[in-house]
Amino acid sequence: MNAAFVNPFIGSLKNILSTMAGIDITIEKPERKVSESARGDVSGIIGMAGPQVRGSMAITFTQEMAFAVMEKMLGEKVTVLNDDVRDMIGEITNMVCGGAKSELHEQGFDFEMAVPVVVSGSNHTISHKVVGPKLLLTFNSEFGAAFIEICFNRKVDVDRVKK
Amino acid sequence: MNAAFVNPFIGSLKNILSTMAGIDITIEKPERKVSESARGDVSGIIGMAGPQVRGSMAITFTQEMAFAVMEKMLGEKVTVLNDDVRDMIGEITNMVCGGAKSELHEQGFDFEMAVPVVVSGSNHTISHKVVGPKLLLTFNSEFGAAFIEICFNRKVDVDRVKK
Repeated sequence: MNAAFVNPFIGSLKNILSTMAGIDITIEKPERKVSESARGDVSGIIGMAGPQVRGSMAITFTQEMAFAVMEKMLGEKVTVLNDDVRDMIGEITNMVCGGAKSELHEQGFDFEMAVPVVVSGSNHTISHKVVGPKLLLTFNSEFGAAFIEICFNRKVDVDRVKK
Repeated sequence: MNAAFVNPFIGSLKNILSTMAGIDITIEKPERKVSESARGDVSGIIGMAGPQVRGSMAITFTQEMAFAVMEKMLGEKVTVLNDDVRDMIGEITNMVCGGAKSELHEQGFDFEMAVPVVVSGSNHTISHKVVGPKLLLTFNSEFGAAFIEICFNRKVDVDRVKK
């Protein structure tokens, strides 16, 4: 997969957190994942499948980041990782993937989205099992960190991913 | 979704564990998931998307079950949940979904499989975020427990799921 394939996901997450939660995130240099996975407390995972592409995306939030988004997006102050938080993470996963899907459709890439799955548990790790490169994107904000892991069965030029 | 949609996944997991690891599993009464998710130590998650169906499946193993399958399927004795175990869980997830896909294709249901994602972390929970029923299948064996969580954007008649 090339950068054009990854950038819509980055733009979509930035846009959603900025407009809906007023949280600005900055992205670190994208890494090709080799061994250890990002660790987080709650993750939304969604599969994508179509004639040209097969892939998966996972968005992982640290607990403090998830709580901040919850409060700033929905006005709900939470102190435990409950079903409301998991629902919100599922929604964000859907929105990020849906936003990227529209943009990629305009570029001629079409896929169907599977149903989002939310995983929670302190310090869980996520690994995409695919032959081919996996990309790890790390985002920081004043409220905590978020990660996107993404893989497609297409080649990506990591250096061309938008910073 | 109806039972015809779920049974191929059950048959596929039973068949793979029996033929490849010599482990016989028995299924408990299928439950419609309402609140708390199955807790396990390692899960394989795969998305499915096609013109008629969108869904996700997660297979969760307890650590002792994952270690037993590892030893009996691959002859590798492990004591920590490492990349080899995660790779095996990813493969099993792919095989279970692939087996079910073939059977469902014969019934006229077609979908593409996304890429499997493996989550590990002690006692993590999984929740499918979809409007519609989610099914939790619990399997027992002399080596430990396994769970399949499955959801589709179609109605399922839980009582017709094969025991």
